[in-house]
Amino acid sequence: MKDPTKISVNNVSRRAFVSTGAAALFLRGGLVMATGQAQSDPLPSWNSGPAKDMVLAFVRDTTDKSSTKYVEPADRIATFDQDGTLWTEHPLYGQAMFALARLAEMAPSHPEWKQKEPFKSVLAGDRAAMSKFTEADWLQIVAVTHTGMSNEAFEALVKNWLTTAKAPRFDRPFTDLVYQPMLEVMQCLRANGFRTYIVTGGGQEFVRAYSEKVYGVPREQVVGSSAVTKLVDTNGKLMLMREPKVFFVDDGPGKAIGINLFIGKRPIAAFGNSGTSDFSSGDAQMLEWTQAGDGARLMMLVLHDDAKREYAYGPAVHLPDTTVGTFSEELLSKATKNAWVVISMKNDWKRIFSFEE
Amino acid sequence: MKDPTKISVNNVSRRAFVSTGAAALFLRGGLVMATGQAQSDPLPSWNSGPAKDMVLAFVRDTTDKSSTKYVEPADRIATFDQDGTLWTEHPLYGQAMFALARLAEMAPSHPEWKQKEPFKSVLAGDRAAMSKFTEADWLQIVAVTHTGMSNEAFEALVKNWLTTAKAPRFDRPFTDLVYQPMLEVMQCLRANGFRTYIVTGGGQEFVRAYSEKVYGVPREQVVGSSAVTKLVDTNGKLMLMREPKVFFVDDGPGKAIGINLFIGKRPIAAFGNSGTSDFSSGDAQMLEWTQAGDGARLMMLVLHDDAKREYAYGPAVHLPDTTVGTFSEELLSKATKNAWVVISMKNDWKRIFSFEE
Repeated sequence: MKDPTKISVNNVSRRAFVSTGAAALFLRGGLVMATGQAQSDPLPSWNSGPAKDMVLAFVRDTTDKSSTKYVEPADRIATFDQDGTLWTEHPLYGQAMFALARLAEMAPSHPEWKQKEPFKSVLAGDRAAMSKFTEADWLQIVAVTHTGMSNEAFEALVKNWLTTAKAPRFDRPFTDLVYQPMLEVMQCLRANGFRTYIVTGGGQEFVRAYSEKVYGVPREQVVGSSAVTKLVDTNGKLMLMREPKVFFVDDGPGKAIGINLFIGKRPIAAFGNSGTSDFSSGDAQMLEWTQAGDGARLMMLVLHDDAKREYAYGPAVHLPDTTVGTFSEELLSKATKNAWVVISMKNDWKRIFSFEE
Repeated sequence: MKDPTKISVNNVSRRAFVSTGAAALFLRGGLVMATGQAQSDPLPSWNSGPAKDMVLAFVRDTTDKSSTKYVEPADRIATFDQDGTLWTEHPLYGQAMFALARLAEMAPSHPEWKQKEPFKSVLAGDRAAMSKFTEADWLQIVAVTHTGMSNEAFEALVKNWLTTAKAPRFDRPFTDLVYQPMLEVMQCLRANGFRTYIVTGGGQEFVRAYSEKVYGVPREQVVGSSAVTKLVDTNGKLMLMREPKVFFVDDGPGKAIGINLFIGKRPIAAFGNSGTSDFSSGDAQMLEWTQAGDGARLMMLVLHDDAKREYAYGPAVHLPDTTVGTFSEELLSKATKNAWVVISMKNDWKRIFSFEE
């Protein structure tokens, strides 16, 4: 494994964003769906087993008008966490990697950072110091790398980063590291009249930069954390400027709040992967909020138990703990009590990434 | 005209919400659209003239694949202010009438209000005092009437109020006072692949209580002002409790901010009616934000110049000024400069309400 905190602003040739593996796969997937879905397995990257069966039974029940579990299309809403649920979050969240890369790019114009924490440790590549960063430290890093510019300028930075940056270990664009089995679930749901939303603790504008191309999720169906923005008129051009102030944190209880705020309807299916022991961060409340409604419900958690093909972490199953996307013992207890389906990446997924043979 | 600030909690027989005139009309309209739209006039309540022509030309241009102004369905987004644009806002916003009615209902449990402003003036029906209420006064009224309960409980209160309350002057349910010509524009747009959003300075949860039935706008397409909510577990039941704290103000510049936050795409059509002289409140920025994008655009403002059939106000055209939905001289200047279409209710609308013969 490569140094997880090493700042890599790659010098490789630029690739057109649309040609990343994941995006191309999504587009191919769409064509397959459109031509001959009915006869084929809608979840070919899943091994047979209870997890796959639960997804298929849920889709069948909620779309069969003769079923007592039938749900009107307008209420077929499924929400997906992103980091660790739709794409790889280790060794660091993709957005954190973006922030560190931006910091390295910006450093020449900020000589003072060499003497000032938390920037000093990042620029020195001091992993030990970085592993102890507080939330306030990360907020400082996010403030200088994510704000002080218009939303449009920010999106351009994200798109550019996606075409050049490579994820550790795999040495591929971050958008190659989306989970093929989850793309298939999203496509299957959409082919059956569902709307799929991303509900992420990550930045709303960050994810919007690629949600449509990578996941087939339009911008208006991305719910995430956000900064305060201010409408400014610069020489007759209106812009929404990103301010260094948190507006909304879409994490933990914030996911239920964000779902109500942005969607205004309760999902009938929710997919996550993480939860701290106190549930202040992660997906527990999103799944609880989903389950608390009447009628058919599907709640699933992705467990990262495949060190060979991806990563393995989570104290709940005696895997290493981590501050990035932890699957706590408390989350497992809650999942068991509420009969949520835990997806084993190792056992339930035939293929994790589209680039695997 | 009746006393505009008189609190009227009517004793009339309760009506099923779905049977209000506006909702029934919407449903009838939907059927007409579905059966024989092509041959008929999609805007029958509009008089012939430039305003009607602009709407029809815009729809034709943006949906004709051979036009240089063609817009993909995913980007056909139209935003509508509510108060004064979709329904009557005089003598007071519907939501303010709801707040005053709630206050009257709650008063017996709050004897202290008889001595305490701003409640004292409301309960005494002191119009002179109420006309001088500050924003802080109104926020106190909103706090006690709109918060301290779950979103679900709040929605039930709104729905109940809508079935019993009557609008001043017309003595009809508030939802009867939606503008038939605007419903036709919304229906025409939707029949042509547009998504219609409400972008209101009013409360998001308030409008969601009736947006689908009255306007055909689903809950997730209502952007509005909101209170902070908190996720609480009461005896195993999860609820989003409404806190007496403003979360987001979707008014003036907030409308551009809210559009980006909730929709994430720039509208290509926007409809409003108001703007204070400093544009701190109203629809000016929503229209400017819409216009600042590339390609076909449609910006329209409803002018209330029909005292006979509805109300007439707006200093821009030498009508009485008002703190409720003012159409300032500055707004008219901006409209002229930017070639926004000003809709004269008196001249452009053949019929204002569905209940008119």
